[in-house]
Amino acid sequence: MKVAILGAGAMGSALAIPLVDRGHEVRLWFTKFDMPIYEEVSKGKPHPRIKVILPTTIKLYEPDELGVALKDVDATIIAVSSRGVQPISELVKETIGTPKFPLIVVSKGIEVLSNKAMTMTEIVREYSGSDKVVYVGGPSLAAELANKRPTYVVYASKYIDIAENIAREFSTDYYRIDVTDDVIGVEVSAALKNIYAIAYGAIEGYLEANNIVNNNLKAGYLAKALNEMAFIVSSCGGRKETVFGLGGLGDLYVTSLGGRNSMFGRLLGKGLSVKEAFEEMQRRGVGVVEGYKNAETIEVFLRQKNVPRDKTPIFNAVYSILYEGSSIDTLFKAIK
Amino acid sequence: MKVAILGAGAMGSALAIPLVDRGHEVRLWFTKFDMPIYEEVSKGKPHPRIKVILPTTIKLYEPDELGVALKDVDATIIAVSSRGVQPISELVKETIGTPKFPLIVVSKGIEVLSNKAMTMTEIVREYSGSDKVVYVGGPSLAAELANKRPTYVVYASKYIDIAENIAREFSTDYYRIDVTDDVIGVEVSAALKNIYAIAYGAIEGYLEANNIVNNNLKAGYLAKALNEMAFIVSSCGGRKETVFGLGGLGDLYVTSLGGRNSMFGRLLGKGLSVKEAFEEMQRRGVGVVEGYKNAETIEVFLRQKNVPRDKTPIFNAVYSILYEGSSIDTLFKAIK
Repeated sequence: MKVAILGAGAMGSALAIPLVDRGHEVRLWFTKFDMPIYEEVSKGKPHPRIKVILPTTIKLYEPDELGVALKDVDATIIAVSSRGVQPISELVKETIGTPKFPLIVVSKGIEVLSNKAMTMTEIVREYSGSDKVVYVGGPSLAAELANKRPTYVVYASKYIDIAENIAREFSTDYYRIDVTDDVIGVEVSAALKNIYAIAYGAIEGYLEANNIVNNNLKAGYLAKALNEMAFIVSSCGGRKETVFGLGGLGDLYVTSLGGRNSMFGRLLGKGLSVKEAFEEMQRRGVGVVEGYKNAETIEVFLRQKNVPRDKTPIFNAVYSILYEGSSIDTLFKAIK
Repeated sequence: MKVAILGAGAMGSALAIPLVDRGHEVRLWFTKFDMPIYEEVSKGKPHPRIKVILPTTIKLYEPDELGVALKDVDATIIAVSSRGVQPISELVKETIGTPKFPLIVVSKGIEVLSNKAMTMTEIVREYSGSDKVVYVGGPSLAAELANKRPTYVVYASKYIDIAENIAREFSTDYYRIDVTDDVIGVEVSAALKNIYAIAYGAIEGYLEANNIVNNNLKAGYLAKALNEMAFIVSSCGGRKETVFGLGGLGDLYVTSLGGRNSMFGRLLGKGLSVKEAFEEMQRRGVGVVEGYKNAETIEVFLRQKNVPRDKTPIFNAVYSILYEGSSIDTLFKAIK
């Protein structure tokens, strides 16, 4: 297969590794924001985000070479930031017309475009014109995948045969792919998990700062959080079982174990205000906290989907802590 | 309410704390195996297992005082070891006849009696003669509960009104109780979780010993394990959603975070044989590994329930490692 990967950040570049191992022709296209990465990778230096040297068989394309990168491809992976999904989808369409090959989307989140909250695949469909879309969820830290550590993911498409075909072509002994047709379930789980990971981090931070061991609470929270996520997903037309699989539980757990969202949550749990937590993150040289932005777009999404808000106490508490100045106690009261 | 607690081990004694806080008359009955604990507690010393001094309002009863302890009670908690549930149920019936008050069971596991694998409430029903039984599941480390740390549990009964009534009487601001009628779901989850916690520990031990970071694997495992547990529970007539709640996910998680089962698993993961792992546990002064015994009785239970074994690869792998000398690789191959 010829596969283009649009976006050479951590996840796009990591995905190139199993594809190369499967013998596919991999074309890595760099957005203009990826150019600092291009400077390193094109000289054979390690990818600055995932710290591995990419296989030399990967063809690298600069921002103005999208047309060449997409020529005769059998599939294309969209691996830009959630905010980049709309412009890139448009750009693909402008460059080659509505694509005939499947578009595989690994970006996570909800974006609000013209006051409308949209999932990643909704955006891809609307702006590329194609509905041959596969959504990728599950616990998949890019650096681990790039180092060929066992990674279990789920590919979702309303065209299950497309998802199965792509899964067959992309899977390796360390990159294992389940498939499902519950696209909305996987997408909403992927967006929500950052919020619930912030809350998990906040609980850990609070317990640490107060020198309390309370694994009962952490475990109880995890079960309650998953069930709230499942309620939201089912309110949006997805299936609860999806939330209890790789795309929900798996992704929430890996995000809670480490990463920026749980780190940010820990700082809040230790008593820092949102502003102070951001300052501390900056001091540590850690960039964007996805969950912070997610909370705002998901708030719009939940209202749009008429999700009954008395059934989402944990989300409400996190939103209120992040955007309305509520104290961390709000979270503890919300775990019922 | 007058409540008798049969068994003064960690969990029985811990449960006395919220009951005292709710103003109930608590009668703690010591089995003959609990007498070393009685020696301490009756002198006002801390309970040797949970390290707290029990409230003086708790009435203590010696092994030969069961009849007095049970006189006019409104509910009785059975908190002996899983092996003790059958003789205690018989003893209750011999002492006062078939009880009219609800029996609340916190013991966990499957026991094989006359070649028949039975859950805890099946044993209580059969040997006490009463079916007014409530089963307690969820992440509930006794020492944390005894220290009034937030603890979320689930009470299950086929008579949902009994479960609700008991939950109303027992709950406090730190002991929160959900109710369900899925007794088999909670019971099987409670028995299975030790097995899957051993496997989680084995993965962590393996990764540590080999200096590998692989959170993708841990998260992928957790999702796969929960779904295998859900498959088993539904094969036994329980509901999958129960496994994804406090009784399954919650209890598996708290058990995986710490405790003997995951410690034992870690040793296996680091490359020790089962025999060596037991020797090391002994050296550390850590007693019984419930999951080891559980694996054997659950194996009988699964056969009895005709659970399709090609759908339980993780359980099969753990069983095979524990009882058939298989290497730890068996586990990694089983996570598909």
